Amino acid sequence: MKQIQGIAASNGIAIAKAYQLNEPELTYKNKHTENPEQDLERLIKALNISKEDLDKIREHTEQALGKEHAEIFSAHLLILNDPEYINPIKDKINKEMASAEAALESVTNMFVDIFKNMDNAYMRERAADLQDVAKRVMAHLLNIPLPDLALIDEEVIIVAHDLTPSDTAQLNRKYVKGFITDVGGRTSHSAIMARSLEIPAVVGTKNITSTVKQGEPVIIDGTEGKIITQVDEETKNIYQQKLKDFKKQQQLWVKLKDEPTRTKDKIQVELSGNIGTPRDVGSVLENGGEGIGLYRTEFLFMGQAEMPTEDMQFEAYKSVLEMMEDKPVIVRTLDIGGDKEVDYLDLPKEINPFLGFRAIRFCLANEAMFRTQLRALLRSSIHGNLKIMFPMVATLEEFRQAKQLLLEEKENLQKEEIDVADNIEVGIMVEIPSTAILANQFAKEVDFFSIGTNDLIQYTMAADRMNEHVSYLYQPYHPAILNLVHQVIQAAHREGKWVGMCGEMAGDPVAIPILLGLGLDEFSMSASSILPARSQISTLSKQEMEELARTVLKMGTAEEVKKLVKEKTPRSF
Amino acid sequence: MKQIQGIAASNGIAIAKAYQLNEPELTYKNKHTENPEQDLERLIKALNISKEDLDKIREHTEQALGKEHAEIFSAHLLILNDPEYINPIKDKINKEMASAEAALESVTNMFVDIFKNMDNAYMRERAADLQDVAKRVMAHLLNIPLPDLALIDEEVIIVAHDLTPSDTAQLNRKYVKGFITDVGGRTSHSAIMARSLEIPAVVGTKNITSTVKQGEPVIIDGTEGKIITQVDEETKNIYQQKLKDFKKQQQLWVKLKDEPTRTKDKIQVELSGNIGTPRDVGSVLENGGEGIGLYRTEFLFMGQAEMPTEDMQFEAYKSVLEMMEDKPVIVRTLDIGGDKEVDYLDLPKEINPFLGFRAIRFCLANEAMFRTQLRALLRSSIHGNLKIMFPMVATLEEFRQAKQLLLEEKENLQKEEIDVADNIEVGIMVEIPSTAILANQFAKEVDFFSIGTNDLIQYTMAADRMNEHVSYLYQPYHPAILNLVHQVIQAAHREGKWVGMCGEMAGDPVAIPILLGLGLDEFSMSASSILPARSQISTLSKQEMEELARTVLKMGTAEEVKKLVKEKTPRSF
Repeated sequence: MKQIQGIAASNGIAIAKAYQLNEPELTYKNKHTENPEQDLERLIKALNISKEDLDKIREHTEQALGKEHAEIFSAHLLILNDPEYINPIKDKINKEMASAEAALESVTNMFVDIFKNMDNAYMRERAADLQDVAKRVMAHLLNIPLPDLALIDEEVIIVAHDLTPSDTAQLNRKYVKGFITDVGGRTSHSAIMARSLEIPAVVGTKNITSTVKQGEPVIIDGTEGKIITQVDEETKNIYQQKLKDFKKQQQLWVKLKDEPTRTKDKIQVELSGNIGTPRDVGSVLENGGEGIGLYRTEFLFMGQAEMPTEDMQFEAYKSVLEMMEDKPVIVRTLDIGGDKEVDYLDLPKEINPFLGFRAIRFCLANEAMFRTQLRALLRSSIHGNLKIMFPMVATLEEFRQAKQLLLEEKENLQKEEIDVADNIEVGIMVEIPSTAILANQFAKEVDFFSIGTNDLIQYTMAADRMNEHVSYLYQPYHPAILNLVHQVIQAAHREGKWVGMCGEMAGDPVAIPILLGLGLDEFSMSASSILPARSQISTLSKQEMEELARTVLKMGTAEEVKKLVKEKTPRSF
Repeated sequence: MKQIQGIAASNGIAIAKAYQLNEPELTYKNKHTENPEQDLERLIKALNISKEDLDKIREHTEQALGKEHAEIFSAHLLILNDPEYINPIKDKINKEMASAEAALESVTNMFVDIFKNMDNAYMRERAADLQDVAKRVMAHLLNIPLPDLALIDEEVIIVAHDLTPSDTAQLNRKYVKGFITDVGGRTSHSAIMARSLEIPAVVGTKNITSTVKQGEPVIIDGTEGKIITQVDEETKNIYQQKLKDFKKQQQLWVKLKDEPTRTKDKIQVELSGNIGTPRDVGSVLENGGEGIGLYRTEFLFMGQAEMPTEDMQFEAYKSVLEMMEDKPVIVRTLDIGGDKEVDYLDLPKEINPFLGFRAIRFCLANEAMFRTQLRALLRSSIHGNLKIMFPMVATLEEFRQAKQLLLEEKENLQKEEIDVADNIEVGIMVEIPSTAILANQFAKEVDFFSIGTNDLIQYTMAADRMNEHVSYLYQPYHPAILNLVHQVIQAAHREGKWVGMCGEMAGDPVAIPILLGLGLDEFSMSASSILPARSQISTLSKQEMEELARTVLKMGTAEEVKKLVKEKTPRSF
């Protein structure tokens, strides 16, 4: 038996054969053709089949994971329909008598070289997209099947260097019991996908692909981030029991769907879901969410040819509010810029986009656009329990200015005799250190806080979590982070305001005991984490967690915090 | 009389005629030549004169402002010597019969287009360099003189959209009494240069170039960031008196050179200088610096073909220590990465370099290089009063690891029977929010803190100060920043440790009263700010400033803080 430690990406146990996701070799012999027309025909056929593939993958992804996950495939389809890419390939066949394969390869390489030499991460990603698409066309030209995850017909654990969006989109949950990757972290694309799909996963193992053999039995403990290979009979029995217990646990979780969220000592907190589009509401309700803690409105603006109108926005907000009935729905105003790009907005290219012109900064400078969103929100307010939240607020002036615009639009609507709810709470994301530090001042003016840990951690540690060289500094349990969270909750409670959290941390089983002890009022997370969190909270005593929180606030390192929490609140899953 | 408010960039009063720095129009008639050899000769001549120009400017800058300011001109010279740029120009003349002007313009535009399309700020700057150099060559081809600031022979105030390094390098202090720009902030290149040159300056006026007429009398109040145009007799008299007072004040400042720095109520603090190279030490001593609060060692590593050897580093550190005799010298270990690039180190291109792989993060991952620097420092320690400081520390683990390497190298040197001082203090920069927040933990393990406000403010406000869209969020007086500084000083003093500050804020006359009240022990700044700061501090009562500090810590916005400090501590300069 051999144990490998990785990063726990998605809870659960899986026992199955390893399925090494190897890339087929796509080589060809003929660089030239005697019959350009025939090669042109082969090219067009391969392009068409590739488009059909991508259409299917896109549709499958949209159904399984939602629209935003499917956008990447629309981008891939655009490449295959781009004459600036396709015409040079055709020209090479027609004018230079190149074979379809050689023409495809040569033109692709030319563009990839240009993109890569741009020394710019965004363009390098475009290069990767182009290679991904060209690989598919080449496979069809050569009649070599690409590894088709959808065709797997026995229980396996996928072992891969990394999983691309196309890979995860094709995973069939019936057979794919889990996955393990060399790279990635808790907030990387593949980890988020694993939690959405509710498949156990361990990422960031560094070299799993070179240590596990094709077909070898493997065990994943996604809760602990452990992988076991060279499995002996005893270990297998232990984990089979664990797996049974986990499944039993899952059935118990389902029973908690309509229960309130209460600690062992009967203190109630609220568990909500994060959503990107109205279609995500179903999953939050199925998983017993008591509200929407974060509705990210930027998906309304992204992947569109132009700005959504006030009416389009109104319909989207209204539909979420109606589906949630009287449950609270916190809508975050547009958080665009930074890593999120929108063609029609002409956002500036920035040297440090994470420290740049985004979210409320951008909205306050683009007042007309912002007012449209505020009007749509105000109009929707009579259809449910709406709360409005401003992102990336760094100063009191910004909050005051945004709230002023909201009040002005409310007045305008009232003048137009359009109904607006009277009791809309207006709060802010706490994701910039200055705002957490000055929470006592903000608490006097806002109705609530929602702590956005993904950004708060990045700024507090001065480390871009998407940068592999410094991602080790993305430390949710760092006592500086916990002290900021503590400070925010204390400040809010002194003013009789409530505090939520809508970053990845709110659903993290190691963080939950601490957050409970610190007095967090609302936890907002991926829908699939809600029931496990409700179950975990029911086993914890608020009073004991307060004691635990006091201790961790005085610690020096994230490692010490993690160790103590694991010791004090043992979990099986 | 008309008053325009800008950003106070460099103290002092100036009264003189406005000198609008207009760009000459460089147009030419002949696109083609009948005599390529003649055009080739003209090109070569223009290139050679341009090189001579740049050589002179570089030399002048190096003498006036130091080596690091002169580097940009070495880069410009490299462009003029680059066959990849020059040969295509010659080819166009030879093969296409283009005139020298047309060939220069066409090739320059081609490269500029390529660079600009790279959608990457670094390459866009390279495009600006190329345009700057080409403009000079074009001017020589056309025999049109470029505005030569060095030729100004009457007292003026320069009015410009922005000042480039070549512009500031040519300023003759005898005639140029001050400058005003449309763009920039307190920490922009031109503002820093103005303080180095001790010329009053106001920047960030937005549109001064379109409101001031050529030759019109103008008054600058660089201390208040005010500009006065349409000057009436009375205002002129007031400011002439102010100017006289300021000059008298300057003479008084010189008398403070060898005095200790004491408040009105006789509390002593330390005023030190920031340096980049050993040649900056002279200026710190002439200005009465009591130590070096920050020796930035990266200039040893930048603009070199290869890594400096241990001996080269040893000589540099030793020379600074010897010049400073027994005064303290705080050497910061290599802070490379982020915006500072070094060719031979192969630093990764990053999406958010300010949140990336730099300083101690890079050094701990490149141990051999780091150990070399530590050995050089340890060897130099017997030649003065050395203190070692690690930059960008975000966790206790990083500090412990760095200190461990230092101890190991000390042991190694002792085994080799090389002398090392016994009393070297080892501290850290506090420039990452997590470290300021956890100062109580760090204070137990470090010997001192030095607060690096430039970065601390950027991270705490999540705003890149070099990004014009969000530079308004670079707020040194934001109460969140002041609270962090307070927390760091409190934590250090509880453990009997001392706290310095080496960011721009330490020399800022609005910040000094607050920092004094918060209990800062050491202020490290540009050499030219030391005497004014000593003078200002002598007028302040520590006890009163403590009261002031208590008040500002409870405020909500930077504006309120600024207003109160100006009210409570009126200054003439």
